[in-house]
Amino acid sequence: MGDGAMAVHRFTPTHYHTALGAHAPVLNVAPGDTVETTTVDAGGADASGLRVTERGNPQTGPFYVEGAAPGDTLVVRLERIVPNRSGGYSASVVAPNVVDPEYVAQMPPGRVRAWAVDASAGTAALVDPPAGLEGLSLPLAPMIGCFGVAPDRGQAISTATSGPHGGNMDYRGFRAGTTVYLPVFAPGALFHIGDGHALQGDGEIVGTGIEISMDVTFSLDLVKGKRIGWPRGEDAHHVFTVGNARPLDQAVQHATTEMLRMLQAEHGLQGEAAHVLLGQCVQYDLGNVFDPAYTMVCKIAKHLLRQVARGAQR
Amino acid sequence: MGDGAMAVHRFTPTHYHTALGAHAPVLNVAPGDTVETTTVDAGGADASGLRVTERGNPQTGPFYVEGAAPGDTLVVRLERIVPNRSGGYSASVVAPNVVDPEYVAQMPPGRVRAWAVDASAGTAALVDPPAGLEGLSLPLAPMIGCFGVAPDRGQAISTATSGPHGGNMDYRGFRAGTTVYLPVFAPGALFHIGDGHALQGDGEIVGTGIEISMDVTFSLDLVKGKRIGWPRGEDAHHVFTVGNARPLDQAVQHATTEMLRMLQAEHGLQGEAAHVLLGQCVQYDLGNVFDPAYTMVCKIAKHLLRQVARGAQR
Amino acid sequence: MGDGAMAVHRFTPTHYHTALGAHAPVLNVAPGDTVETTTVDAGGADASGLRVTERGNPQTGPFYVEGAAPGDTLVVRLERIVPNRSGGYSASVVAPNVVDPEYVAQMPPGRVRAWAVDASAGTAALVDPPAGLEGLSLPLAPMIGCFGVAPDRGQAISTATSGPHGGNMDYRGFRAGTTVYLPVFAPGALFHIGDGHALQGDGEIVGTGIEISMDVTFSLDLVKGKRIGWPRGEDAHHVFTVGNARPLDQAVQHATTEMLRMLQAEHGLQGEAAHVLLGQCVQYDLGNVFDPAYTMVCKIAKHLLRQVARGAQR
Amino acid sequence: MGDGAMAVHRFTPTHYHTALGAHAPVLNVAPGDTVETTTVDAGGADASGLRVTERGNPQTGPFYVEGAAPGDTLVVRLERIVPNRSGGYSASVVAPNVVDPEYVAQMPPGRVRAWAVDASAGTAALVDPPAGLEGLSLPLAPMIGCFGVAPDRGQAISTATSGPHGGNMDYRGFRAGTTVYLPVFAPGALFHIGDGHALQGDGEIVGTGIEISMDVTFSLDLVKGKRIGWPRGEDAHHVFTVGNARPLDQAVQHATTEMLRMLQAEHGLQGEAAHVLLGQCVQYDLGNVFDPAYTMVCKIAKHLLRQVARGAQR
Repeated sequence: MGDGAMAVHRFTPTHYHTALGAHAPVLNVAPGDTVETTTVDAGGADASGLRVTERGNPQTGPFYVEGAAPGDTLVVRLERIVPNRSGGYSASVVAPNVVDPEYVAQMPPGRVRAWAVDASAGTAALVDPPAGLEGLSLPLAPMIGCFGVAPDRGQAISTATSGPHGGNMDYRGFRAGTTVYLPVFAPGALFHIGDGHALQGDGEIVGTGIEISMDVTFSLDLVKGKRIGWPRGEDAHHVFTVGNARPLDQAVQHATTEMLRMLQAEHGLQGEAAHVLLGQCVQYDLGNVFDPAYTMVCKIAKHLLRQVARGAQR
Repeated sequence: MGDGAMAVHRFTPTHYHTALGAHAPVLNVAPGDTVETTTVDAGGADASGLRVTERGNPQTGPFYVEGAAPGDTLVVRLERIVPNRSGGYSASVVAPNVVDPEYVAQMPPGRVRAWAVDASAGTAALVDPPAGLEGLSLPLAPMIGCFGVAPDRGQAISTATSGPHGGNMDYRGFRAGTTVYLPVFAPGALFHIGDGHALQGDGEIVGTGIEISMDVTFSLDLVKGKRIGWPRGEDAHHVFTVGNARPLDQAVQHATTEMLRMLQAEHGLQGEAAHVLLGQCVQYDLGNVFDPAYTMVCKIAKHLLRQVARGAQR
Repeated sequence: MGDGAMAVHRFTPTHYHTALGAHAPVLNVAPGDTVETTTVDAGGADASGLRVTERGNPQTGPFYVEGAAPGDTLVVRLERIVPNRSGGYSASVVAPNVVDPEYVAQMPPGRVRAWAVDASAGTAALVDPPAGLEGLSLPLAPMIGCFGVAPDRGQAISTATSGPHGGNMDYRGFRAGTTVYLPVFAPGALFHIGDGHALQGDGEIVGTGIEISMDVTFSLDLVKGKRIGWPRGEDAHHVFTVGNARPLDQAVQHATTEMLRMLQAEHGLQGEAAHVLLGQCVQYDLGNVFDPAYTMVCKIAKHLLRQVARGAQR
Repeated sequence: MGDGAMAVHRFTPTHYHTALGAHAPVLNVAPGDTVETTTVDAGGADASGLRVTERGNPQTGPFYVEGAAPGDTLVVRLERIVPNRSGGYSASVVAPNVVDPEYVAQMPPGRVRAWAVDASAGTAALVDPPAGLEGLSLPLAPMIGCFGVAPDRGQAISTATSGPHGGNMDYRGFRAGTTVYLPVFAPGALFHIGDGHALQGDGEIVGTGIEISMDVTFSLDLVKGKRIGWPRGEDAHHVFTVGNARPLDQAVQHATTEMLRMLQAEHGLQGEAAHVLLGQCVQYDLGNVFDPAYTMVCKIAKHLLRQVARGAQR
C-alpha cells in the first residue's frame, strides 16, 4: 500500500480512448493518491452535453501508477460518482440476444429515450415517457460501466467488451463506496475509466443504463506481488469476484473459481471449507448480459467471513 | 379462482415419483383447497430419517385439481415449509461444471456433510465441520427445490431437471409466502412437490442445499383460460418469471420474454413501455446452475408496477 | 448377439407416439430379428399423403426386444430407408436461433415448401421454387431424424428433443448402412422410429429436412451387459459417438467423452493413447442445431483404428 | 484487384508479434503481390528448432497492402504451406473444456509429444508413441492456425483468440489452395501469419495440432469498397464463411448469417432462396473448440451455386 502524503490530483481530460491498452499516460500518480476527474457518456458527450469524442464508452486516462508492475494488484477505491449534467439517455428495447429468438420479430422498434436526471433530488424520469410510464420516477444509483487496466500480451481491447483486465462489465455494483481489485499486466497498470450510468437494471438488457457524464473521484493503490486472476471487489457488506465471458455459464465459472482461490488464499479456508461455505451461502449478481463478454459476480457476505474467522480462532 | 368452502386436506404419502408426469393422482382437490402433507428429502428419507423411497428428488403427489385443463394456469400458494426432522445433509464440493474446466483437477474430493437443523431456533450448523468452518451457524430459509405439473405431450420428465412445467428449479425464492403460477398441460394439472432444502446458496453450486424432509402446506387454485409459457411467481415485494434451460443465457431469454409478455398482458405496458421499465429496473436471481436445465429468475419490484399504474391513471 | 433363425417381421402401424417412453409394445422381436415397417412424416402424414396422426415426429413402435434389460446395449442396423411417396415438404427460412439475434428481424417470412421426390431417379426438386432456385435438383440421401428407446427413470420424452436415449437427433448420418448402438433403460428396450428425411443439410437449420414418409427396414440385436452412456454408431468408414445437449459445446463434451470411453474399452487405447489419436485425427459432424437439444457427432476413421491395432500387435 | 506486374517478395522475419494489431509493417506490398516467408511454430521455434521468440502463436508480419483501407476486403491466397523442419510437437490430452466436467478428474496427465515430420514422404509419426499408438503414421495436411489483420477500434488482440479480423481460428481448411477473404479495419490491412500445423484434428481438441515452423507463400490482393463481416473463403469445391465466438452456438450464428449475406449479395439469392438452399445443402466444419473463441465454418458446395446460377439464367 502507498505511504506518505496521499496527493489529490485534479485532472481535466482532453482526449479519450475506446480501447483499453498501453496508451500514453495522462497522469502519473503515486500509490495511495486520489484522482478527481470527469468522464464523458458512452456516446462521447461531456458535462455540457456536447460530443467531444467518438462514441463507444470513451475512457478518461490512462493513469500511470508508479511502481505498478505485472503480477501486482491495483486497488481502486470508487469514492464519488456523480452525474455532472441534467440529461441522460437510454435505449428503449430489450436487446435481441436477451429474448427468445422467435420473439425477436415481435419486438417494437427502439429509439433513444431522454431522461431528466436530478442529482440533488436523486431521481431520474423520462422526458417523454411512452404510454404507461408517465408516472415513473427512479432513484439514482450512479455507477461506472467500464473501467480497467491495460491487458496482458500488449493487447488493446475494445471498451465494448471485458476480460480479466476489467473493461465494459456494466455491473451496478461498481458504485461509490466499492473497492475494486484488478490484476496489473503492464508497467504502471494504466487505469482507464468511463461510461457512467445514472442507474441501470441488472444485465443492462436494453444495452444501456441511463448514460450520462460524471464527476468521479477514486484513489489508486497497489498490493505489490499479489497476483489475482479476475477483478475482485468489496463494499460494506460483501466481498466479490467478477467473471467476464460468454456464455454466462463461463462467466459463472470464472467468478466462482476466483472466489474459491480468494477464500483459500486470503481467508484460510482450505480443502472443502471454501466449497461448503459457498455451497450454502454464495450469492450471484448478473452484471451484464448484453456486451460481447457477459459479466457474472460471485459474492459472499462479510459477516459470514467474520463468523468463520472467529469460530476458527477458538 | 375457486369459490365456496375451501377444504383443507391432510395427506400422508405412501409412495413417491422421480419423474413429473401423468401418474395416478393421490388426491383430488377443488380449486382453492389447501393441502397439508410431507415431503421426503432428495435422497428419499422421511421425517424419521429412514429411506422410504429411491433417491432423486422423490415427489409427493400428484394432486388432481378439479376442473384444471390444458391452457389454464395453476396457482400454488406456498404457505408453510418447515423441516420435520433435525438432521439434514449437503454435498461439500462445488460441482465441476461451475468452476473453470482447468480447475477441476485441483478440487478436493467431496463427501456428504451432515447438518444439525434446529427448526425452533431457526439455524443450521455442520455436525462435523471441516477446519475453518467451526463457527458457522446459518439462519434457516426453507424452500422447495422441485415441484411442478405434468408436462405437455404426455411426457414424464425426470425430477433431476426442469422445464415449462416447473420441476427441479432449485430456486431459493420458492419459500413460504411465495405464490407460483404454472401452466396446466394435463387434465387436473397433476401437481407434484418434493426436494426441500433447509437453506441453499444461489445456484445450488455444490449440487445440493441442506437436504431435509419437510412439512408443507400449500393451496391450489386455478385461473381458467389463462395460458402462460413459463412458471411465474410473486412474493410481498416482487413479481417474477422463471426460465429453465441450458446454457444460462437461454434461461435468461425464457425468463425475460415471459416477463415482457406478463407486463404487456397483465400490466398494460404496451410497445416500448415494458422494455424501458425492465431496461433500468429489472433484477435477476440465479436459481440453479447445477441441474441439467439451469434456472434464471427475472424480477420486477411491485412498488414500481404500482407507481406506473398510478401514473398511467392520471 | 442373437442366435438361431433371424425372423423378418412385417409390421403395419396403426397408431404413433410423440414421446419416447414405456408405451405398450406393438411387436415383440427376438434379438437379431428384422423389422420391415413404415414411418409417417414429421407432420403425421403417411404414404398416401393423408394425415393419420398428430404432428410432431410421430413414432412407429415401440418394438420390444426379448431379453433386453437396463444396462444392455441395443444394436440397430438401419438397412433400408426409402421414401414411399413422391411428395415431401420443408420449412423455408433459417431458424431464428441459428442466425445472429440482430439479424432475425431482417429475415423473410417463411412458408412450407413442397418438394417432388423421385425415389427411382434419386432426386428431389422444389415444386414451386423461389426465384433463383429454379434449377435446383438434389440427390436423395434418405435418413431417419428421430429414433430411440424408452428413457431412464420411467421418463417419456418428447420427440422434439433428444438425450442419451436417442430421440430427435436429426443427424444425416443415420442412413441405410449405419449401425446404431443405444443404451437400454427399460425392459425390452422399446425401440421407436419415425421422422424420415429424403435429405437434410447439416444442422437442420431451417428446422426440417425434406420431410417424408418412409419404408424402413432395420434389425434389432442386443449386447447383453454392455453399458454405454450415449448413442454410438458406425458405418463403412467411421465409428462415432453422439452427444445431445445445449449448448453445442456440451454436445461436443458428451460425444467426446463417450468416444474416449469407447476407444479405451473397445480398442484398448489406455492412458494418453486415445487422447493423442483423437487430438490429431478426430472429426466432428453437426447433427442438429435447431431442436431443444443440439446434436454433435464425434468420429474416428476405422482405417486408423485398424492401423493402430496392427501396430500394437507387432 | 491488383493489376500490372505482380511482384514476389522474399521476406525473412527478424521479430514476431503475439497480438494482431497496428504494429509497424515489416514490408509494403502492392495488391496482387506474392510473399514468400517463414513462420515459427506456436512455441516460437524456427526452422532450426531454436526458440527465437516468446511462445504463443508468434506471427510473421505485419504486411502492409498499399491502398487497403477500412471497408475493403483483403484477399489472401494460401499458395504453399510446407514444414521446414523435421520435428513437430503436440499436446497429448484432450482439453478439460472439451470433455464432460465430471470426466476431467479421470484424465491422465498430459505431456508434450514429439512427432517426426517427413515432408517429402508426407507423413508424421510419434517419436515415442504411447502404448497402443506404435503403428500410427498420419498423412501431412499442413495448415495455418492463426492469421489475420489488424482489428477495428485500434485494438490489438491476442494470437490466442480470434474474431472478425481472423486470428487463432485453428481450422484445418486453411491450407494451400484456399483463398481467404478478410475485412480490412486499418490502413494497409496489416496482415499477420503464423502457427503452422503439420496436421490437426477437427476442433484442435488437445489444444494443438502438430506444431511446426513453415515455409509459406501467399499472395495479397484487395477488393476495394467491399465490406464483409467475418472471414470468408473458398477452395476448389466450396465457398465458406467463418464465425469465431463462444459458445459454439454463437460461432454457428455468425458463420450462418455471413453465409446468408454472401449468398444474397454475391449469388443473387434473395428472399427465401438462400435460406431454402442452405436448409437442405449446408455443411459445417468445426474449426476449433479449444481457444477463447471457438470457430465454426459454414460451407456450400460450388457445384450447387453453379447449378442454381444456370437454372436462374434460363
